[in-house]
Amino acid sequence: MTTVGIVMGSDSDWPVMRLAAEALAEFDVPFEADVVSAHRMPEEMIAYGAQAAGRGLKVIIAGAGGAAHLPGMLASVTPLPVIGVPVPLKYLDGMDSLLSIVQMPAGVPVATVAVGGARNAGLLAVRILAASDEGLRERMERFQVSLKEQAHAKGAKLRAEAAALGG
Amino acid sequence: MTTVGIVMGSDSDWPVMRLAAEALAEFDVPFEADVVSAHRMPEEMIAYGAQAAGRGLKVIIAGAGGAAHLPGMLASVTPLPVIGVPVPLKYLDGMDSLLSIVQMPAGVPVATVAVGGARNAGLLAVRILAASDEGLRERMERFQVSLKEQAHAKGAKLRAEAAALGG
Amino acid sequence: MTTVGIVMGSDSDWPVMRLAAEALAEFDVPFEADVVSAHRMPEEMIAYGAQAAGRGLKVIIAGAGGAAHLPGMLASVTPLPVIGVPVPLKYLDGMDSLLSIVQMPAGVPVATVAVGGARNAGLLAVRILAASDEGLRERMERFQVSLKEQAHAKGAKLRAEAAALGG
Amino acid sequence: MTTVGIVMGSDSDWPVMRLAAEALAEFDVPFEADVVSAHRMPEEMIAYGAQAAGRGLKVIIAGAGGAAHLPGMLASVTPLPVIGVPVPLKYLDGMDSLLSIVQMPAGVPVATVAVGGARNAGLLAVRILAASDEGLRERMERFQVSLKEQAHAKGAKLRAEAAALGG
Amino acid sequence: MTTVGIVMGSDSDWPVMRLAAEALAEFDVPFEADVVSAHRMPEEMIAYGAQAAGRGLKVIIAGAGGAAHLPGMLASVTPLPVIGVPVPLKYLDGMDSLLSIVQMPAGVPVATVAVGGARNAGLLAVRILAASDEGLRERMERFQVSLKEQAHAKGAKLRAEAAALGG
Amino acid sequence: MTTVGIVMGSDSDWPVMRLAAEALAEFDVPFEADVVSAHRMPEEMIAYGAQAAGRGLKVIIAGAGGAAHLPGMLASVTPLPVIGVPVPLKYLDGMDSLLSIVQMPAGVPVATVAVGGARNAGLLAVRILAASDEGLRERMERFQVSLKEQAHAKGAKLRAEAAALGG
Amino acid sequence: MTTVGIVMGSDSDWPVMRLAAEALAEFDVPFEADVVSAHRMPEEMIAYGAQAAGRGLKVIIAGAGGAAHLPGMLASVTPLPVIGVPVPLKYLDGMDSLLSIVQMPAGVPVATVAVGGARNAGLLAVRILAASDEGLRERMERFQVSLKEQAHAKGAKLRAEAAALGG
Amino acid sequence: MTTVGIVMGSDSDWPVMRLAAEALAEFDVPFEADVVSAHRMPEEMIAYGAQAAGRGLKVIIAGAGGAAHLPGMLASVTPLPVIGVPVPLKYLDGMDSLLSIVQMPAGVPVATVAVGGARNAGLLAVRILAASDEGLRERMERFQVSLKEQAHAKGAKLRAEAAALGG
Repeated sequence: MTTVGIVMGSDSDWPVMRLAAEALAEFDVPFEADVVSAHRMPEEMIAYGAQAAGRGLKVIIAGAGGAAHLPGMLASVTPLPVIGVPVPLKYLDGMDSLLSIVQMPAGVPVATVAVGGARNAGLLAVRILAASDEGLRERMERFQVSLKEQAHAKGAKLRAEAAALGG
Repeated sequence: MTTVGIVMGSDSDWPVMRLAAEALAEFDVPFEADVVSAHRMPEEMIAYGAQAAGRGLKVIIAGAGGAAHLPGMLASVTPLPVIGVPVPLKYLDGMDSLLSIVQMPAGVPVATVAVGGARNAGLLAVRILAASDEGLRERMERFQVSLKEQAHAKGAKLRAEAAALGG
Repeated sequence: MTTVGIVMGSDSDWPVMRLAAEALAEFDVPFEADVVSAHRMPEEMIAYGAQAAGRGLKVIIAGAGGAAHLPGMLASVTPLPVIGVPVPLKYLDGMDSLLSIVQMPAGVPVATVAVGGARNAGLLAVRILAASDEGLRERMERFQVSLKEQAHAKGAKLRAEAAALGG
Repeated sequence: MTTVGIVMGSDSDWPVMRLAAEALAEFDVPFEADVVSAHRMPEEMIAYGAQAAGRGLKVIIAGAGGAAHLPGMLASVTPLPVIGVPVPLKYLDGMDSLLSIVQMPAGVPVATVAVGGARNAGLLAVRILAASDEGLRERMERFQVSLKEQAHAKGAKLRAEAAALGG
Repeated sequence: MTTVGIVMGSDSDWPVMRLAAEALAEFDVPFEADVVSAHRMPEEMIAYGAQAAGRGLKVIIAGAGGAAHLPGMLASVTPLPVIGVPVPLKYLDGMDSLLSIVQMPAGVPVATVAVGGARNAGLLAVRILAASDEGLRERMERFQVSLKEQAHAKGAKLRAEAAALGG
Repeated sequence: MTTVGIVMGSDSDWPVMRLAAEALAEFDVPFEADVVSAHRMPEEMIAYGAQAAGRGLKVIIAGAGGAAHLPGMLASVTPLPVIGVPVPLKYLDGMDSLLSIVQMPAGVPVATVAVGGARNAGLLAVRILAASDEGLRERMERFQVSLKEQAHAKGAKLRAEAAALGG
Repeated sequence: MTTVGIVMGSDSDWPVMRLAAEALAEFDVPFEADVVSAHRMPEEMIAYGAQAAGRGLKVIIAGAGGAAHLPGMLASVTPLPVIGVPVPLKYLDGMDSLLSIVQMPAGVPVATVAVGGARNAGLLAVRILAASDEGLRERMERFQVSLKEQAHAKGAKLRAEAAALGG
Repeated sequence: MTTVGIVMGSDSDWPVMRLAAEALAEFDVPFEADVVSAHRMPEEMIAYGAQAAGRGLKVIIAGAGGAAHLPGMLASVTPLPVIGVPVPLKYLDGMDSLLSIVQMPAGVPVATVAVGGARNAGLLAVRILAASDEGLRERMERFQVSLKEQAHAKGAKLRAEAAALGG
């Protein structure tokens, strides 16, 4: 059953947001992805949020740029945790997207990740699901071990390069 | 008939937003004011926007702070011009409010005024109404003349103070 | 009769500002476009603003970058609504343009849109004109429906791409 | 059983962070609160994170200010979801705290809330727990209804005040 | 003969701008001060700038806050050097004022000083006048010596305080 | 006799700073240009500033980037007006350069122009010299007329392009 | 023998900078403190830096605000490590001070600490001296243990307060 | 014996960080370089810091980007001076990296250099080592003389270019 919904205001956000999908796929978490624009289809956006829990979704990941209202609006109509991804636009380096998403008023939280940080949005969804799924939590722990191993491997290569500099 | 709707996310915005109401009252433009929260009553907010034109409103003024979604969300469900007022919160001096309101995507404009600039939101509404109301436009022109006269009066006082400094 | 004047400080702003013109053309709103520089031809700029209403203009759209004074100066000499477009320059991503336009003092409002948001300036002018033009308002409503339909179409394409990822 | 751990770098963060505790108490979610400083007791901080899941915690809420490393460091040693609260310090309005918490590298997410947004951190923890707890989700839905009712009540009061202005 | 004109958009700028006047008075440079608002009396503002050189002024000092257009507009209608003082408003710490003044387009320079730096505006005017006035230059050099002597005196006091700390 | 000194911290600033030289050349103002680094040759930098007035210079133009100390340090050892040009570096879009130059303490002014605004630095030097040189002031006035004529010419071209869009 | 010199541009910086002195006093590191202004006594400032190593100083701590040139200028005339403290002024929260100090060009480093972070400047000086002083390094290690113990004590108190909330 | 450890969160930081290595190599200071990620190998990171002094290191240089926790975390577990290099990422021009590194709380200093300023990190390490190494200090002084000579050479070339412009 689909447990994570990935939505974004426009298909132009997909090159960023697909990193969330890929992270979920690595953990075999079933997801859906769709264009749900707060500004171009507001009623459908409200409906998407209002029906999400009833459809069995456990987490919503929403990406948007500029005056990024999608994550916060979805959070206002669902009791599910909503993860917001600030998508950077051509100007301002995503600072507008970040502030529009993270600075939510008391009562309606959005779990915000880094500018362009859609991969972490996917991994955060996995952690949230893993809070009540022992098996998934063990996979997350193995993933964290693999991060460490990759870092070690990079270190070995770097030590060699540095030695060549006379270090 | 009420022609301008002034809405805000919380009554804590009223000390800022009442300046819009006062400006409209100076021009005898009938208005209404209400709490319409994008995050706490999203369906009612959508309904407010969707029905505004049918109820005879000509302009909506919306104030919000932080992740300020109200002006943009209203603009997405009404064909009326929406004026956004960035209300400054305790931190960040309203920069979050400003960017959340002004950086709307192509297709859905919000007419944004200065941080805390609710009086100008009221005056902008008057100008918009005056675009098709000769009498109102003449009042705006007289108002502009009065601004000039006040500035002149202040100048006279200042010249005297400066002279006392030895200028 | 020409109802919207689009002006800018330099012809180098035209690649941004023509988006305003194109939006007006889509709605068959007659417009004019011109270089009216606050800093290089201040007297003519003042004259342009002072005569705009008398010439039958209903709305002025003004774009400028950096220390962007054109929108605010025009607003000081006309009772018409003035829409300001912050044009981004080589450095600072348009933040200087935005603040120079939006932070107007009480008394003289400028309806500011996003950095580089000239298309929305055109659409805002349409909304302002539509406030007293039923037919134009219906066209704006149809336009908003078309935005929704485009978003739906993009969603269908995206759902297919996401399914291919294993979602 | 304690399910949420609330930690902060110093007891001077408690006036902000207690809002998270109060939100959890409203939902009868058992929590603990402690000083766990990334910079003054790094080994204990690592131990706190590494043991959190084993001790039965489901979510960690971490608040910090300035070069705010606590949320990200905890996220690196636990598979649990970590919620970061940017605590504003005397200068920079919490912008340093926000960026230090939200801009995590790919691989290690922190669910960031608004500057000083500890109440939302508590509510986000409730949503995360509710993702696998039907009863808690219903309480969250009732809470959302109560937000709406409070907003309605504020609107009634505001409409009266506005009418007195001549609106 | 009056050689420096000090102008500002509103008398509320006077507590900042009088520091410029006081600096000029210290050097016995004759000055005038007035309210000349770019936004409330644009034609008079243009006239002030256009007539300044003919009236014998050598330098104009202009202070303004927010969307601060006065210095740049004056510079566009006079060949005299114009010194701009960014006056800080309630929000944004004068960053809007600074960018609105300093980021002038090529062709029309404004000599910008620090946020709230009106005293330095006065001293800069003295330096400009002194470029062709040997006597005034010698006074500026003596002033610079006095700055040094004051700094030395402060150092003596500080050394004593530091010694008391055990330094 | 050389009347303007153009100095910069490194020859890598020359592509920006030569615009100042070109502006001076247009007005036949004799100038010199040199590398005078505050950080790499501090004693020579001090000497350059201390001797400038005695050598007959009337104005110094100093460009620097990042922690840009050259303009302010020169201003501290000369009674001449010093014009500072914030040179943008690879990161931060010149915001560091701007603040390092403009935010001088009371007592030691630097006349700051826009980020990368070296042409305006040259033109400001001309205005300063023209304050006591009638002939130069007339040339500046003719230059301002030529700016206006160029703007008019651009307007004619733009009006034609706009008409083609259906305006 | 005095090993650390603490200097600042003005005695108004002393309330911030004395924290550096107090930190040094805690470690019995002999220090001196003085007003050495880059802008008001540039030659003496150069002399202070040039003679520092010869006088036996090992580290210089320099605090300054706004266009903060003192740390970088001292670093350019001494081979000693220079620690820069960004002192916040009335506006801009020390961001100008920070960028003016930290963004030094390649070749001349300044060891920058937090805005207002004079205590850390003192502690950093101790670490630098301790790099070649075993005894001092052991004192620094004991100091770090004491930080941990204080944090533990604060945690005990906080746990009690949290329990009272129902945690 | 290796005296400086250069560490970074990822090998992608090496193109920036190798400038630190090259600076140390120019001064024949023995160094090591490694990947030590705060977020991917936190226990090893803690161990690296805790053992650094015992292994004979005198200074640690740590580079990181975004939510850059490595320098501060190392500083919390070693009594050695730690130099932090803010590595700029794709967005925000390194401002997040800078604030995450420099804004450390009282008690745990990090000696921060400019965004991307790894060469200066190397030179700062040399200065720190030179504080107790007469020979190294003389090399640093010769290096500073060479900086001056290079600047002089560049000046000669620039003077010729400027003369060709008519200066």
